[in-house]
Amino acid sequence: MLHPDRYFSPDPGIRKLARALYEEVAKLPLVCPHGHVDPQLLADNPAFPDPTELIIIPDHYVFRMLYSQGVQLEDLGIKRKDGGPVETDHRKIWQTFGDHFHLFRGTPTNAWIRHEFEEVFEIQERLSSKSASRIYDQIQEKLNQPEFRPRALFENFKIEVLCTTDGATDDLKWHKKIIDSDWNGRVCPTFRPDAVINFDHPQWSTEIVKLGEITGSEIKDYKTYIQALESRRAFFKEMGATATDHAALTPLTLELSESQAEALLQKGLKGEATAEEAAQFTAHMFVEMARMSVDDGLVMQLHVGSFRNHNQTLFDTFGPDTGHDIPIQTEYTQNLRALLNKYGNDPRFTLVLFTLDESTYSRELAPLAGHYPALRLGPPWWFHDSVEGMRRFRRQATETAGIYNTAGFNDDTRAFPSIPARHDVCRRVDAGFLAEMVAEHVIDEDEAREMIIDLSYNLVKQTYKL
Amino acid sequence: MLHPDRYFSPDPGIRKLARALYEEVAKLPLVCPHGHVDPQLLADNPAFPDPTELIIIPDHYVFRMLYSQGVQLEDLGIKRKDGGPVETDHRKIWQTFGDHFHLFRGTPTNAWIRHEFEEVFEIQERLSSKSASRIYDQIQEKLNQPEFRPRALFENFKIEVLCTTDGATDDLKWHKKIIDSDWNGRVCPTFRPDAVINFDHPQWSTEIVKLGEITGSEIKDYKTYIQALESRRAFFKEMGATATDHAALTPLTLELSESQAEALLQKGLKGEATAEEAAQFTAHMFVEMARMSVDDGLVMQLHVGSFRNHNQTLFDTFGPDTGHDIPIQTEYTQNLRALLNKYGNDPRFTLVLFTLDESTYSRELAPLAGHYPALRLGPPWWFHDSVEGMRRFRRQATETAGIYNTAGFNDDTRAFPSIPARHDVCRRVDAGFLAEMVAEHVIDEDEAREMIIDLSYNLVKQTYKL
Amino acid sequence: MLHPDRYFSPDPGIRKLARALYEEVAKLPLVCPHGHVDPQLLADNPAFPDPTELIIIPDHYVFRMLYSQGVQLEDLGIKRKDGGPVETDHRKIWQTFGDHFHLFRGTPTNAWIRHEFEEVFEIQERLSSKSASRIYDQIQEKLNQPEFRPRALFENFKIEVLCTTDGATDDLKWHKKIIDSDWNGRVCPTFRPDAVINFDHPQWSTEIVKLGEITGSEIKDYKTYIQALESRRAFFKEMGATATDHAALTPLTLELSESQAEALLQKGLKGEATAEEAAQFTAHMFVEMARMSVDDGLVMQLHVGSFRNHNQTLFDTFGPDTGHDIPIQTEYTQNLRALLNKYGNDPRFTLVLFTLDESTYSRELAPLAGHYPALRLGPPWWFHDSVEGMRRFRRQATETAGIYNTAGFNDDTRAFPSIPARHDVCRRVDAGFLAEMVAEHVIDEDEAREMIIDLSYNLVKQTYKL
Repeated sequence: MLHPDRYFSPDPGIRKLARALYEEVAKLPLVCPHGHVDPQLLADNPAFPDPTELIIIPDHYVFRMLYSQGVQLEDLGIKRKDGGPVETDHRKIWQTFGDHFHLFRGTPTNAWIRHEFEEVFEIQERLSSKSASRIYDQIQEKLNQPEFRPRALFENFKIEVLCTTDGATDDLKWHKKIIDSDWNGRVCPTFRPDAVINFDHPQWSTEIVKLGEITGSEIKDYKTYIQALESRRAFFKEMGATATDHAALTPLTLELSESQAEALLQKGLKGEATAEEAAQFTAHMFVEMARMSVDDGLVMQLHVGSFRNHNQTLFDTFGPDTGHDIPIQTEYTQNLRALLNKYGNDPRFTLVLFTLDESTYSRELAPLAGHYPALRLGPPWWFHDSVEGMRRFRRQATETAGIYNTAGFNDDTRAFPSIPARHDVCRRVDAGFLAEMVAEHVIDEDEAREMIIDLSYNLVKQTYKL
Repeated sequence: MLHPDRYFSPDPGIRKLARALYEEVAKLPLVCPHGHVDPQLLADNPAFPDPTELIIIPDHYVFRMLYSQGVQLEDLGIKRKDGGPVETDHRKIWQTFGDHFHLFRGTPTNAWIRHEFEEVFEIQERLSSKSASRIYDQIQEKLNQPEFRPRALFENFKIEVLCTTDGATDDLKWHKKIIDSDWNGRVCPTFRPDAVINFDHPQWSTEIVKLGEITGSEIKDYKTYIQALESRRAFFKEMGATATDHAALTPLTLELSESQAEALLQKGLKGEATAEEAAQFTAHMFVEMARMSVDDGLVMQLHVGSFRNHNQTLFDTFGPDTGHDIPIQTEYTQNLRALLNKYGNDPRFTLVLFTLDESTYSRELAPLAGHYPALRLGPPWWFHDSVEGMRRFRRQATETAGIYNTAGFNDDTRAFPSIPARHDVCRRVDAGFLAEMVAEHVIDEDEAREMIIDLSYNLVKQTYKL
Repeated sequence: MLHPDRYFSPDPGIRKLARALYEEVAKLPLVCPHGHVDPQLLADNPAFPDPTELIIIPDHYVFRMLYSQGVQLEDLGIKRKDGGPVETDHRKIWQTFGDHFHLFRGTPTNAWIRHEFEEVFEIQERLSSKSASRIYDQIQEKLNQPEFRPRALFENFKIEVLCTTDGATDDLKWHKKIIDSDWNGRVCPTFRPDAVINFDHPQWSTEIVKLGEITGSEIKDYKTYIQALESRRAFFKEMGATATDHAALTPLTLELSESQAEALLQKGLKGEATAEEAAQFTAHMFVEMARMSVDDGLVMQLHVGSFRNHNQTLFDTFGPDTGHDIPIQTEYTQNLRALLNKYGNDPRFTLVLFTLDESTYSRELAPLAGHYPALRLGPPWWFHDSVEGMRRFRRQATETAGIYNTAGFNDDTRAFPSIPARHDVCRRVDAGFLAEMVAEHVIDEDEAREMIIDLSYNLVKQTYKL
């Protein structure tokens, strides 16, 4: 079913070359510097319970598409916040998935699932109403085997390192358990302090208390606040972290005086800050986080431009990450200036930028990355982590930034068994992109052979210091 | 002249497959859910007077391009508002068109006119200075024949249904005449209330009076206003309408209280509303129109982002729709939230979105349509209803929204004899798009064969309940 | 090394046709209506000192990329404003360039330099760490020969006319020297008054004094100011100018009353204008410049959307034009309306628009240019003057504006020996674009043969009245 030349141009010359380039990297280890795999999976190494629990329920890419065509989330087993009834018959949910699988035609979810079925679970037929139940059984049978436990898959997938994403107050106990175990898989935490730098984060008030508790001194003022963050970063670094990660609606950065920052923080602690003040404080903290990165060497990642929880009814019923975070227009040139003017020239600093606004690739991001030594462009993110999305990124960013100001690939997934599929799509698209440049005599073949290894392996390791 | 493989990739494998897919749908009936054909044409069924009256004078795509290269609109026979002299020698105007036909190279107008010439009028040569007069005669000769009257063409074009666009106070007498006639062509009205929901519409004050008259009770307050609109919608539905259509500069939606709405309406009725108040009222009325759609089942269409009548001198001289409506940047994620939060999850509601800002395809529209059950993406609109424009739409929207959250094609034309050409371009581009996905093994050929029929016929019928 | 079919599609049919089209124009003279070559080069005709001085130091495309990967500008010999030490060993700088040349893979700089090496300097190997020193010697040897002096290269490149860019107060002495010489090369100045219409320009106060001096009457009020500008334009025209050029952050245009303009100018002269007042005055002066163009026939060029000198530290150390001007989002539809409403319909006026925001091609620029007789779209600018950038421009602008509302190519370069390379890339991309349209039967081959000559030669001459 999976064609060996998928995602390559059908032009015979390009295809042959793309295949050759792809073969150089197809079996290289997977470096996964950013994603949302639950570390408990690799600490406890439980069997995945069933296909629905593995593939549908945790993946908002999957259930949002079904929802868009009239399938209720309750009927997909997505948990309601109020504990109200949801479908518990996982085979039935799987059948609903099979009945609607045609909706995914032409989408990356389709590509990943086909890959996962064939390469991970050795399934030889397409998911459909007819095959759903049969495929459910085949996957279930595999999941019952020890070779399909998380650690075994991790090794089988040839994951060299996998970084998780963890809140600032996380005790990283699962990471500790992994380190303390006799298993040698490398699983690193990533410091994600959104909840403690954004007053408007739903967990702000509880997390700021936790932050005081976990660092042993109540967050009363800016000084203790900054010390607490520095202390958490040090702890994360000790536990193997090489990076931080930050999300916000916009990439606004601002440098406030300490007294201004103190005044805002006091308002935030009292729950009296306006939305604008919250945004200003976060903007200031981005600069402060960059300062800390200069000091401790943690690579800074910025994921911006997603309007979270657009559908209020769904958010109220099911909570966050349920498929209705929608991108907005994003401005980088002016918003990032404060941060880049302060630290963009510093050789100790690395900032990896992600965007959901493709119009910024050629207009803002490539020109910025093609100048500031600290900047690297992250791979196409979220909705753009797809065959066409990756092509647009390379075609729009490369001529100004080159490939050496980009950060390689990351899978950004919470769907653990889709990791090899995602890396494979990227390696194929990059191979195809390079093959087209060779075919048009923009680069030479020997250059392409170096570049495909850089894109698939070297750049990500260098960028994230892995 | 018309190559049977036009608009397909020259790659032999893709071309062969594209042709096969195209052949599945080339002869399917045309479903035309949105356009601007004058219903009187099909009610009275007159002969089209001459080629210039048919092809040049009503088509702002044609005359704007000639104008951009120095041809005066008066010399093309476009009527001045002041009744001032314009060229009346239609053969001479046609000659000017022929003299400048090279300007259209590479444009959709060129594609449509070539198709129309060859497929409708059996002309075997290219329009040019030399051939203009000869072609004029050939078309004229056809137009004199009964087979070239509107109803005969309608049947010959295999139009299954054609929807017009009609103001809220239109008495739909031409639609009535068609219904009452012995002719069986299906021609449906569409409820377009722009003039009575936008205080700044040039006809607002006259139309609001007419609205009172036609519904039998003067529009004095919000209650009578809403009742009048509901009554008109009911009348349109009775006359065969399945949809409404709405235009605005931005897609801002707002939910006001009844007393706020009443206050704004009173200002509007007195001509005292500011531009911002007018925009707020329209934004509120979009939500109100969605509510009515939930009740009466009419599909809601939103065409936004066109700055109308950009060229004041031309507008003053020739009026609206004379080729200088220019797109602006458009924001959907935040602007549509009020409406989508209220009705976006309702299975009784369908909202079809159109844009002139292609940067929103992947950033906002596909993510929204890939989540909200009520949303469908309309086909590439106006300037983007072209070979490259359609490709960009499919490549940028499909990976996130799939094809099943799109609304099929509509020709949106006032140029009646170009209807088959426009549908044919779309069917070819869609076939080519699918063929490329098959060639790159993104989808399988059997899937593509289903998808081309969905794209060309099923989706539009389902979306518009036709 | 340079493949004869570079930048053409690898599809054999398209490639053959692209090559045929390219051959029609490959040897046509180069018309260079906009660029930044120093006229002194062609007045004094000195030998270029060495490869580093020729290729690295003046080219911010080159050194910004090296800087982005950690090479200090001092180590590239870029002069510091404070006269601090910089590398003076030009062979060593060249070696650094060679060591990092892989960074340019896939960029237009790579394409231009390869072309320059092979076609201008007859170098047969790729620049690398190993070959750097050898290539340095080869270029140096050529530069010592009289055939490599600027005038000889000008002739050898077949430059028909080259326009420079010159401040409003420039005495054009080098242009005079060229005119007075026995050399027949045509080198025209271009009137670029940014420094005297933007209060916030770093040279505003000194330039406004110079403007008074050079025109013989101190700039005290709006009347003398306007007269001075008119007088300078007349002088430029006398010296061969056919165009003006204007840069600004946004394309805002405004029509102020004379008393408003006077009030703003007085503030500007006293250094008391706010940033907003400065922007308003510039916006007004754009309309005023259009008025003057109607009178004197100089073609008006607008280059907007670049946030200049983004990196404050680098600007403070090295000055402007050092690789960190970064594009911003740009709005044309509403911003240009005042100017276009006043002069956009005037047959005596030509306005050439440039953008760094590609999202405006299909959304705003093509619709505007496809309507207003005065408008022409300039070629892809700066970061977009590349193979993929040019393709995007043609694919996004042609369907709405056609090719006849575009202005042909300009190289916009200060890197004199790269001129043929830049024109060659454009001719190849245009040939490839047309060949694809022929292969997809959008246009016929005979049309393409006319169009390639229009794109490569006729349009630029017509647009710029050269």
